[in-house]
Amino acid sequence: MKQSFSVNSVKSVDVLIVKAHVLFSGGKDSSLSALLLEPYFEIQLVTCNFGILPTGEVASGIAKELGFLHQVLRPDMKILEEAAEIVKKDGFPNGAINYIHRRALELLAGQNGIELIADGLRRDDRVPRLEHSEIQSFEDKYKILYCSPLMGFGRFTINKMIESNLVITEEESAVILKCDYEAELREYLYREIGEEETSKLFPRSHKQSRVISRIRN
Amino acid sequence: MKQSFSVNSVKSVDVLIVKAHVLFSGGKDSSLSALLLEPYFEIQLVTCNFGILPTGEVASGIAKELGFLHQVLRPDMKILEEAAEIVKKDGFPNGAINYIHRRALELLAGQNGIELIADGLRRDDRVPRLEHSEIQSFEDKYKILYCSPLMGFGRFTINKMIESNLVITEEESAVILKCDYEAELREYLYREIGEEETSKLFPRSHKQSRVISRIRN
Repeated sequence: MKQSFSVNSVKSVDVLIVKAHVLFSGGKDSSLSALLLEPYFEIQLVTCNFGILPTGEVASGIAKELGFLHQVLRPDMKILEEAAEIVKKDGFPNGAINYIHRRALELLAGQNGIELIADGLRRDDRVPRLEHSEIQSFEDKYKILYCSPLMGFGRFTINKMIESNLVITEEESAVILKCDYEAELREYLYREIGEEETSKLFPRSHKQSRVISRIRN
Repeated sequence: MKQSFSVNSVKSVDVLIVKAHVLFSGGKDSSLSALLLEPYFEIQLVTCNFGILPTGEVASGIAKELGFLHQVLRPDMKILEEAAEIVKKDGFPNGAINYIHRRALELLAGQNGIELIADGLRRDDRVPRLEHSEIQSFEDKYKILYCSPLMGFGRFTINKMIESNLVITEEESAVILKCDYEAELREYLYREIGEEETSKLFPRSHKQSRVISRIRN
């Protein structure tokens, strides 16, 4: 006897999922993550902003170009303060970026109507990075699903996928305002300890990229 | 000055990539992997067959239903013999499945015209599983790119994505012929050491799933 159906033995939460909330920095990775999920879910982009730089507005403009809904999430300023302490203690930003990403995921997961959260983490990313057990705890605690659509892809494959779908601009970092955690973290430290001390804490970044628009085939 | 272009500083190999060869078992995961890559690459499905069971033909029929090109890869029988030895030594099939998957990847990577290889590995898969350093060596050695499109997704999210795109049938394992490595490995051992001994080496599987057709929206 043949029985055809789509899915069996799924979590009850699974049946309800129609929307994916994608953490969005305006960069290539989070944009491509949204594109990959688009055939399967309604996409809602979400950008974290601490009120230090206008990253919410910039990201909102890029989201509009991509044709996705967008919202700004306002985490407590305390999180940025704590992250700044972590950078100063460590001497480099990795731990702090990881810290902000986790707090952002938790804040988003605690909102109403969240079913599936996605971020733009790649296979080669060292930070932020979540362990398998951490992902399971996160999903169980908040009764949501979490995914990183690019986790199975390396940089060159991702570049190839972007090439035919997104128009990117690359400029010296002073010109472009990136909407990621590092932008505000750096600005926060800059105001607190000055340019020279801040620049010692972050790896020198040559060029930054930002998504300009979408290539619709 | 604004400069718009798609990608810079890419490997020379990257520019050429138009085709993705997806290792295909006829199951949900490898089918969804192909679907995820479809907007970005030409898809060529590839099924390994040792000549023990007609898994190549079965997989070919499913590939046709999905609308993808398909080819059968014939690894050396020695690989299956060695895998059978590993199962008997270990007392369970994980190491052997890992072993066959690696040999299959290498065999495929060594063929002409291979640019990007994909498999259906998921975040929750324990086997097969490739470490990050192993992936890098593999890509460097064969000058190809490798990806696992589902690696950033958990089971429930994958089920949800399948639900709206694939029609699945689930039956007792005796009825369905799966086209994965385990099918032929099990059959090989069955012929060598009999049903009772073989069944002790494999976890009891209740139901198996196979893709029937595609839901085109």
